[in-house]
Amino acid sequence: MKIFLAQQNYHIGNFESNTKKIISAIESAKQQGGDLIVFSEMSVCGYPARDFVEFSDFINKCYESIDIIKQHADTIAVLIGSPAHNPIKEGKNLFNAAFFLYEKEIKAEVHKTLLPTYDVFDEYRYFEPAYDWNVIEFKGKKLAVTICEDIWNINDNVLYRICPMDKLMLQSPDVMINLSASPFDYTHDEDRKSVIKANVEKYKLPMFYCNAVGSQTEIVFDGASLIFDKDANLCKAFPMFEETMESVVLNDDGTIAAPVIEPASRMPNKQLNPDGLEEELNIAQIHAALILGIKDYFQKMGFTKAIIGSSGGIDSAVTIALACEALGKENVKAILMPSPYSTEHSVDDAVQLSKNLHNDYEIIRINDVYASLLSTVKPLFNDLPFGLAEENMQSRIRGNILMSIANKFGYILLNTSNKSELATGYGTLYGDMAGGLAVLGDCYKLQVYALAKYINQRNLPAGRQVIPENIITKAPSAELRPNQKDSDSLPDYAVLDKILYQYIERRNGPAEIKAQGFEAALVDRVLKLVNVNEYKRNQFCPIIRVSPKAFGVGRRVPIVGKYLT
Amino acid sequence: MKIFLAQQNYHIGNFESNTKKIISAIESAKQQGGDLIVFSEMSVCGYPARDFVEFSDFINKCYESIDIIKQHADTIAVLIGSPAHNPIKEGKNLFNAAFFLYEKEIKAEVHKTLLPTYDVFDEYRYFEPAYDWNVIEFKGKKLAVTICEDIWNINDNVLYRICPMDKLMLQSPDVMINLSASPFDYTHDEDRKSVIKANVEKYKLPMFYCNAVGSQTEIVFDGASLIFDKDANLCKAFPMFEETMESVVLNDDGTIAAPVIEPASRMPNKQLNPDGLEEELNIAQIHAALILGIKDYFQKMGFTKAIIGSSGGIDSAVTIALACEALGKENVKAILMPSPYSTEHSVDDAVQLSKNLHNDYEIIRINDVYASLLSTVKPLFNDLPFGLAEENMQSRIRGNILMSIANKFGYILLNTSNKSELATGYGTLYGDMAGGLAVLGDCYKLQVYALAKYINQRNLPAGRQVIPENIITKAPSAELRPNQKDSDSLPDYAVLDKILYQYIERRNGPAEIKAQGFEAALVDRVLKLVNVNEYKRNQFCPIIRVSPKAFGVGRRVPIVGKYLT
Repeated sequence: MKIFLAQQNYHIGNFESNTKKIISAIESAKQQGGDLIVFSEMSVCGYPARDFVEFSDFINKCYESIDIIKQHADTIAVLIGSPAHNPIKEGKNLFNAAFFLYEKEIKAEVHKTLLPTYDVFDEYRYFEPAYDWNVIEFKGKKLAVTICEDIWNINDNVLYRICPMDKLMLQSPDVMINLSASPFDYTHDEDRKSVIKANVEKYKLPMFYCNAVGSQTEIVFDGASLIFDKDANLCKAFPMFEETMESVVLNDDGTIAAPVIEPASRMPNKQLNPDGLEEELNIAQIHAALILGIKDYFQKMGFTKAIIGSSGGIDSAVTIALACEALGKENVKAILMPSPYSTEHSVDDAVQLSKNLHNDYEIIRINDVYASLLSTVKPLFNDLPFGLAEENMQSRIRGNILMSIANKFGYILLNTSNKSELATGYGTLYGDMAGGLAVLGDCYKLQVYALAKYINQRNLPAGRQVIPENIITKAPSAELRPNQKDSDSLPDYAVLDKILYQYIERRNGPAEIKAQGFEAALVDRVLKLVNVNEYKRNQFCPIIRVSPKAFGVGRRVPIVGKYLT
Repeated sequence: MKIFLAQQNYHIGNFESNTKKIISAIESAKQQGGDLIVFSEMSVCGYPARDFVEFSDFINKCYESIDIIKQHADTIAVLIGSPAHNPIKEGKNLFNAAFFLYEKEIKAEVHKTLLPTYDVFDEYRYFEPAYDWNVIEFKGKKLAVTICEDIWNINDNVLYRICPMDKLMLQSPDVMINLSASPFDYTHDEDRKSVIKANVEKYKLPMFYCNAVGSQTEIVFDGASLIFDKDANLCKAFPMFEETMESVVLNDDGTIAAPVIEPASRMPNKQLNPDGLEEELNIAQIHAALILGIKDYFQKMGFTKAIIGSSGGIDSAVTIALACEALGKENVKAILMPSPYSTEHSVDDAVQLSKNLHNDYEIIRINDVYASLLSTVKPLFNDLPFGLAEENMQSRIRGNILMSIANKFGYILLNTSNKSELATGYGTLYGDMAGGLAVLGDCYKLQVYALAKYINQRNLPAGRQVIPENIITKAPSAELRPNQKDSDSLPDYAVLDKILYQYIERRNGPAEIKAQGFEAALVDRVLKLVNVNEYKRNQFCPIIRVSPKAFGVGRRVPIVGKYLT
């Protein structure tokens, strides 16, 4: 039996383009003699469609797509993901389903049992979990079809009181097939391989694992589909971050007619340091995820051109370099907006960056607007000393200028904030926190430096210096008052990032973090900064997610609360 | 048996103040000879604590609070809400629980079965549902204790495949007690009474229903606790939006020694029009909810003073009037910021408003800053015609000024956007969309007018005109270009609001709305406006929720999607 997996990038709610893409893969698989083609979870509508599925109009469109697709499932069987009606009155009115299409009919429907409802996932919000389980019989084989999370309740990760593969084993299946929409983070590739292998080892069955690829607002799906034979040999490891379609022949004895490969043949996944903050974490994967995140945001929204405030600092430099790679240098405009407190080397560094990248840039001094604003509020401010208000005024003038140019010429403003400053509230709402998409908002400051070095290393063979050395080596500064340095307000990033990582990614409380040897007063101060600044992050744009715990939809914290504050 | 219900307002994560408030009620009930006192759901930590419960440190603090509280539960029994550890390895590691404290011990623990995971609720994210059910025996009576949603799976609302009261009935209980944190919306008071009454009628048992009160960021809990005797007579109807504690004596035969009252004795709840947009909807309740929403946001965040941009339009007028009522006129500062396109009657109207309310105001003309900004971007804009960019620039200058004053003097900026403009994207990000809390963001434009009239009517007996008549009668305008009117860009609010209501509150799709007689092209245009502006609302501040479907945490829509666009 020749089985294809189609690792595709869908556009949520764009039924026309998704259907077209699916049909094209089916037709290609048919031409290549395929018996069965497997698509990823929720392939007809894209994942996560979120509250769109609460509209019966949206669900009708899913069924209409399946009707069109099933006309192509004539001599080939198709497994496709979609929401499905729950015909029973009790419980939620939808299932997260896989439809088995063959001979132009819906031959079977499988429902997801384990509904992830944590981090970025909200599946219990929409779906009723499956409560009966049946294999699908096809050409003399019994297929045990599951959906994503269904195979993750294994080893020590027992989030659920039920295990759908255990139920399916009662019917003696021959093969496991899993339709997934499992997002990337820099720990997930290894996790995924070990979970899938654990299933193969437990059930002694071959596994066809088909994952979605592509970025959906903030969530990046990395593909990396996998095929294991029944002896837990890896037979196919699909590329990360790319659309592709591949097939193997599954023999009657559960072996697979494909050379066994080593997992290492994929994008290298180096050992992650326990604190997750050293360069050993997989910067290559993070880089690729950010590129895809930018590219898909623009393409799916119908945008082409980005505008970015260029300060001469590391965050804007890395954002501009990534944008040039994702969108093309001709589509990236850098705006340098020195204030009275900007140093000339900042302007020089920012100019050099754009010269290296060959992208367009403009220098717009904000001194006049700032003076005019100061004089406008003078009747209220009188002679009160310079402070945070005046710093934020400069930042918001820049936000206004960037948005004005964006509005006038059709640019999208990319935000350059990093995770360390978002965590601590070291940024100005409506100023440097403005933008449509945050490229580095899930990367701590030290990770941004690692990205800068990686970008320079990648371009080294071509003899190109991308990010000027001075941007990497100088002390970070917001330059909103004379001689300002980040270190005036924040602890050293080398310490700060580690505390933040323990609190945000590891969800350790103050006692646990202090027990790791960090200074008690510093821990209390940092955790308080994180919690009192929830109101700022609440108004922040989507952040491309690369870590296991990003700010945004996957982290939901009360604004009006009094915990660790 | 004398039973007290304590309808209290908790501060999420403020264990010290919550514990103090709970103990004070216990001591008071003891003095009055109470046998049992019931608190609301999650009373020790406040509801919803959201991802705070993922910190073991937070859960430890809940248990520490219970340890302190149980010392006071000596001669009186106490039912209190808190997260609880799930000792079983499989499943989520917490329950949403009620602790029964007596003789200074935890005598019993009850777990919530039905975990709301829709709209603003995320309980399946954190909690394992109960899977066994036991009454609590106390002084010869069997108490059937449930938590909030547990009693809502009744009549036509069968969201779940299980019914915990049916399970408890197997043990022949004598009384039902429900600990709730059930939020307000303008339909909910009637729903609640009918659901509770349906339980009493079904199980023929008295019901003690204790609900939380108070606003938690965007979600307003209205209290309105209820006591029914076994014959479904209403014996107590607690006030809405207020803390209070009351008791009744439950006789051995299930009757209650209290006069039967009429539901109408509470805050009047007029018939809601089918389209939900006429003045017959309960404006008095909405008004009270908004006042509590403002008050609690400020008090729990530790703020006192609000600043508001005052345009002379209806939205800012109503916001300023509500803020004056919630915070005191001495704590509200209105800033008038006319641009070259502002009409003088707008300034006059805004001045008159603040004179009527006796709150402080300033007039700050933005002409100079606007001219300076225009000349700063002139090298890029050249002689391109005036357009949206220039309109937004004015709005963002105002945002900058308001935030500068807020930063300088410690004000919190209240946002004045209404639901109609948020729905259609008729607002400027970082401009008039700036602010810490949106007062009117869940009220359609016509509802804002209804609020204005209600505010004036309320103040009429005192001879006070609050909102000048001209503000109510003139045509709405953003005044960002010459002679601009809202109706240049948007359909009439009388039509627009009805279409929005059908799409947002009722979740009807385009075909269903068109079938109601609205013009097809207009429906398509409005629905598209809603969907393409998701990115703006995503960066918006919390909105005080008064409807069954508010923008914010309860409505989760993909930004990068292509549905009805």
